[in-house]
Amino acid sequence: MDPRLAPVAVDAMGGDFAPEAVVHGGYNAARKGLPVLLIGDEARVRAELARHAGWESLPITLRHASEVVEMADHPGQAMRRKKDNSIRVCFEAVKRGDACAMVSAGNSGAVMAGGIFVLGRLPAVERPAICSVLPAVKGRPLLLDMGANVDCKPVHLVQFALMGEVYARRVFGVARPKVAILSNGEEESKGTDLTRAAAAALRRSGLDFRGYCEGRDLLAGEFDVMVTDGFTGNVALKTMEGTARAVTDLLKQSLMESWRTKLGALIARPAFARVKKHVDWREIGGAPLVGVDGVGIITHGRSDALAVENAVRRAHDAAAAHCTGEIAAAAARAEALLAEGEPPACVR
Amino acid sequence: MDPRLAPVAVDAMGGDFAPEAVVHGGYNAARKGLPVLLIGDEARVRAELARHAGWESLPITLRHASEVVEMADHPGQAMRRKKDNSIRVCFEAVKRGDACAMVSAGNSGAVMAGGIFVLGRLPAVERPAICSVLPAVKGRPLLLDMGANVDCKPVHLVQFALMGEVYARRVFGVARPKVAILSNGEEESKGTDLTRAAAAALRRSGLDFRGYCEGRDLLAGEFDVMVTDGFTGNVALKTMEGTARAVTDLLKQSLMESWRTKLGALIARPAFARVKKHVDWREIGGAPLVGVDGVGIITHGRSDALAVENAVRRAHDAAAAHCTGEIAAAAARAEALLAEGEPPACVR
Repeated sequence: MDPRLAPVAVDAMGGDFAPEAVVHGGYNAARKGLPVLLIGDEARVRAELARHAGWESLPITLRHASEVVEMADHPGQAMRRKKDNSIRVCFEAVKRGDACAMVSAGNSGAVMAGGIFVLGRLPAVERPAICSVLPAVKGRPLLLDMGANVDCKPVHLVQFALMGEVYARRVFGVARPKVAILSNGEEESKGTDLTRAAAAALRRSGLDFRGYCEGRDLLAGEFDVMVTDGFTGNVALKTMEGTARAVTDLLKQSLMESWRTKLGALIARPAFARVKKHVDWREIGGAPLVGVDGVGIITHGRSDALAVENAVRRAHDAAAAHCTGEIAAAAARAEALLAEGEPPACVR
Repeated sequence: MDPRLAPVAVDAMGGDFAPEAVVHGGYNAARKGLPVLLIGDEARVRAELARHAGWESLPITLRHASEVVEMADHPGQAMRRKKDNSIRVCFEAVKRGDACAMVSAGNSGAVMAGGIFVLGRLPAVERPAICSVLPAVKGRPLLLDMGANVDCKPVHLVQFALMGEVYARRVFGVARPKVAILSNGEEESKGTDLTRAAAAALRRSGLDFRGYCEGRDLLAGEFDVMVTDGFTGNVALKTMEGTARAVTDLLKQSLMESWRTKLGALIARPAFARVKKHVDWREIGGAPLVGVDGVGIITHGRSDALAVENAVRRAHDAAAAHCTGEIAAAAARAEALLAEGEPPACVR
């Protein structure tokens, strides 16, 4: 951990198991030397902290926020009307420099809205994206956008690629990230008007752009950054979750069918546990917001203490990479890359 | 099998392992009483048949086709320029009534083009679809379109739903198919202009329409017919394939890591085999073309004899259902369903 950094602001009220699981996760992070600023209903947060021995000697600070964004709340309205909501107070702590980053397991639309509302978009960024980190067979590829932007234009896809490349390089330490656009086939002739325009611009970008990838590449680990519109990204992400669950359910069912296979499963248990840990979203550390002026991480609504602790670590690492300026500079290239491919005005 | 039906025309030249695997699969189907008409280079087909004892006494007939559509061929051009290609000759056999249906493991774009070119679209159908049959935890749900139509309008999605519902009911025997549109969330407010317009029309359709489903529902078996544009459908299908493979690969790797887990895997082997069979695409019987005037089934390019045999059975069952007229009648309802939701002309 970087001792020069301010603590990570943690939305103690966000998620299905808040504040209990969130406070517990923050406490565990602090025990490992990562300073946290817990934000939420102070009495409830204190009551939760009281259950953890010796928290007073850890790098844990508190800040009160009197309101909570519910899952059913409209993100934009919640940010405007509930002025003292815990998500907004987290972002304000980042804005003021009291925190180096924020983490929330709450309403993900509201976290995105709060990031844009309080921190603001980076200068050239048209649409910040939610960046999913995938549990691939090898590596941890990024998929942008996972659902914030349903209708996309070429400039958005190009910016997702440019920003994701910086993130993969600076936060995940991939020396030269391989970038691709998710499409319905590898050939250049495939795709839509949207993907073809974005691909043409990225071929001129100087990135290690590999053209189109397909759904089957998402978890293979051959690419480091894959971009798509938020509709397709959301469908793909949930399809991965559903397929992993279907295969696991079928296997469990099948292993329980006879005495023999039950025994085999018992003996092979360490292997199942390893796979489970590898694909466990709680180990991933959440999905960063990319394109806002600061670091925010969205974690799963069902986050437990382990998921929160890992998200705090990821947030801290992202802040320590100090790459917001580089992301802004990368995004600013998109318009020019797209314009280069257009015929001169006199020919149009 | 239905003794009144003509044989199934099988494209003996299509697929990575043609003609060997295809002829073998046709032979196996014929041994089980399903008549086949093998279409392709007659000398090569006869040479393959000669390897299978007693084929002369089975319901196998041959028809020569002098040309082959290659995987790299442009589908439409191949249909026009290679007039005697095996895919086209298969469809012509269906058109004339010499075959009840056709099966091909060849260039899937060319199979779609051949179906439209030779059989024609059903009267009201704007875009025939490729209908994927999914190996769900329970049942065999349909996903349309899996890639034929990248850019879709609401009328296409509505027709996919109306046609798929007939197919699920008449060919798969689902009494009242549950129909949904694939989207980025279950709430009505989610989706795109495309999905919202299609959903509004389907709510008026009298089908058992359940609104939006998500990627995680594809293999859960809660819905019988799920519709989406061909771009998203193709990404979702390949994401399922890739995820199933990633989970399987991780598990295999992990099981091989120690003596203990190797032993467990050996003992539990029957359970792994059952799961493998359940998700085996070769058991699925291929993807039907829906919306052309006749029955065509596209099977995987890597089809072996088992895959071809199952596709012949599926093609025979689809022909025996005699539901082409009902599919046409269903598709014809789409425009009116969409128009009902529009304000009267004087208000616009």
